[in-house]
Amino acid sequence: MSPLLGSETEPSVDRGAGITAPSGFRAAGVAAGIKDSGKPDLALVVNDGPYDTAAGVFTVNKVKAAPVLWSEQVLRYRRLRGVVLNSGGANACTGPEGFQDTHATAEKVADVLGVGAVEVAVCSTGLIGERLPMGAVLSGVNTAACALAGTAEAGLAAAEAIMTTDTKPKQAAVYRPGGWTVGGIGKGSGMIAPSLATMLVVLTTDAVVEPDTVDAALRAATRATFDRLDIDGSMSTNDTVLLLASGASGVEPEVDELAAALTAVSADLARQMQADAEGVTKEIAVTVTGAAGESDALVVARAVARDSLVKTALFGSDPNWGRIAAAAGAAPAALDPDRLDVTINGVLLCKGGAKAAERSTADLSGRDVVVHIELGLGTGTATVLTTDLSHGYVEENSAYSS
Amino acid sequence: MSPLLGSETEPSVDRGAGITAPSGFRAAGVAAGIKDSGKPDLALVVNDGPYDTAAGVFTVNKVKAAPVLWSEQVLRYRRLRGVVLNSGGANACTGPEGFQDTHATAEKVADVLGVGAVEVAVCSTGLIGERLPMGAVLSGVNTAACALAGTAEAGLAAAEAIMTTDTKPKQAAVYRPGGWTVGGIGKGSGMIAPSLATMLVVLTTDAVVEPDTVDAALRAATRATFDRLDIDGSMSTNDTVLLLASGASGVEPEVDELAAALTAVSADLARQMQADAEGVTKEIAVTVTGAAGESDALVVARAVARDSLVKTALFGSDPNWGRIAAAAGAAPAALDPDRLDVTINGVLLCKGGAKAAERSTADLSGRDVVVHIELGLGTGTATVLTTDLSHGYVEENSAYSS
Repeated sequence: MSPLLGSETEPSVDRGAGITAPSGFRAAGVAAGIKDSGKPDLALVVNDGPYDTAAGVFTVNKVKAAPVLWSEQVLRYRRLRGVVLNSGGANACTGPEGFQDTHATAEKVADVLGVGAVEVAVCSTGLIGERLPMGAVLSGVNTAACALAGTAEAGLAAAEAIMTTDTKPKQAAVYRPGGWTVGGIGKGSGMIAPSLATMLVVLTTDAVVEPDTVDAALRAATRATFDRLDIDGSMSTNDTVLLLASGASGVEPEVDELAAALTAVSADLARQMQADAEGVTKEIAVTVTGAAGESDALVVARAVARDSLVKTALFGSDPNWGRIAAAAGAAPAALDPDRLDVTINGVLLCKGGAKAAERSTADLSGRDVVVHIELGLGTGTATVLTTDLSHGYVEENSAYSS
Repeated sequence: MSPLLGSETEPSVDRGAGITAPSGFRAAGVAAGIKDSGKPDLALVVNDGPYDTAAGVFTVNKVKAAPVLWSEQVLRYRRLRGVVLNSGGANACTGPEGFQDTHATAEKVADVLGVGAVEVAVCSTGLIGERLPMGAVLSGVNTAACALAGTAEAGLAAAEAIMTTDTKPKQAAVYRPGGWTVGGIGKGSGMIAPSLATMLVVLTTDAVVEPDTVDAALRAATRATFDRLDIDGSMSTNDTVLLLASGASGVEPEVDELAAALTAVSADLARQMQADAEGVTKEIAVTVTGAAGESDALVVARAVARDSLVKTALFGSDPNWGRIAAAAGAAPAALDPDRLDVTINGVLLCKGGAKAAERSTADLSGRDVVVHIELGLGTGTATVLTTDLSHGYVEENSAYSS
């Protein structure tokens, strides 16, 4: 497993449970016939309350999919009773008709749940530019509604139904002292870049959360986790992270406690996405320290994490620190080449901008690679998780439309 | 051949000639033993005058190789009598010792030519972080000095000696009415991004050029050509484009004429680099029109040209305009998704942000791909040349240190 983001303070995570671990939630995942393959492609998540506090974080791409435009609107009220998610089509770049499709899907879910459409968020993932087969979507909502359950199996089925090029379903849960819980499901394995990734994530909690604080708690969690996962620098049209709080535990944690639990689940889901990224053979953590500020640290870490020459070298298990230095030096951040240190998997290869040890002394034969760049300028620090650029990545993204 | 940058107004280019096409220049390329392979690795270019006007454009990477630091300094005087170039080692991230190596190389060239070291520029390309074998370099300068000639063969030998992962030497020349000429050699096939690329280019002319205008003319040429070639978004530590003017023709062209001739040679060398890029199977031109301004057009064109998902789709001959729309929408430029048109190889696939035609109607079976993005906002236009992201690129950059 790759180095943990904030691992020292994280609550322990249970990957055997997910979205239905907190009380007050039911879920379902079904094969609605949206995917030609016949695999599961529609999920439903329902918050049975007593509260329905919610928040969302969305892609900042200017080209936003219809479900993102819809869900951003309904989240203004900070309330959600249900979320419907589909794989097999992004419903992005589909014009006014695509937005009507999203609206009709929300109305259908509202109808079967007996709630209002403005209490239903919609998430989609898949190919951009094609309309969804609405007959399959709407009948799938019926099927999913009948399958709704609060069991672990139902939560896992929801995680499976949102997979695209993911090879494994992704879920996680943390149990907190006092009897409240955070759970989540996620999907994403390519087109992953800030802000967020081509990811859909639904987080649930049975904590009592005030509408005033739910948004800040979710943003604090995503900022430290999903926003620092960068697989290929490509930003999706559909990225969505939702948080639904049922209050069923009756416990109202401090905001910091809530944010820590949300961060733990989010960090674990991010690591699952990294481990399952398209064509991944190396799980890479790029940490920058000594930057003039945190934003500079992040800019440099991201530039190195995105660099094709760095990523292909690491695919080849080559500790090519010169490419790392070149990528860092090209980033729009303060950098003094004479103070630049580069350490790979614990071996200081570059000190003060020049060779400190033979490259062969760094062992990159394993799956995990830790790149540490010290800038020697200040106290700014940031870590970005990424993967290598492999034949598998090229194969997966050239041979299939996605 | 891919779409020409400014082809309509370009003088015709002769690839059978290069750096020795203009009068007043001699060149040589030899195998000095810097490369383990024994292939040619050291080139010398000499300006015999009567004038020695010169200019240079260099990488904007904050991590600059020793030869870049040296050549930037000597170019302050706008005069060069000679240029020594080596492949087989970048002499980057080599500390004060590396700078002393560059200085010693320039002194050696000055010695054999009977000029001052401040009249000698140095260029290096190859692996970052290793010192050069100075014995080989210095004796190679002697050998090259003996081989100097004003013949076409000598110019081609210089082009061959600066190759790294290039598979072909790159040279070009244009002959202008009135009897003056511009020639050039270049290398570069990966780590190519603005500003400039991992490229070394030496341009020569026998025009009479004033020291006051030489810099502006060179910058105008590079801005429209090398700065708009982006193979992998990775910016080198060693990029250098030099212009040497001998004045041997006795003709002093207008600045616009000179810039046009320099642009023609530079554009042709850039296209040769694109055609010979690492792993290339598609030569891609991304043109953005209708942007709010030229800088916005360039930002969007570059974002699309760099996007791994766009580049892998094009490797797979898949006209996946959704990925193009997503990459454009993620760029930091003004964009209205409802006004976005995407045309690939002449077929309008996306109109007003939604599907306009089946993707299969665009034919990507050939080597050339023209992506045209119309933003519908203003009059800003820019074209960036790139290549696809192929198995060959991954192979070349993972299996070998470079």
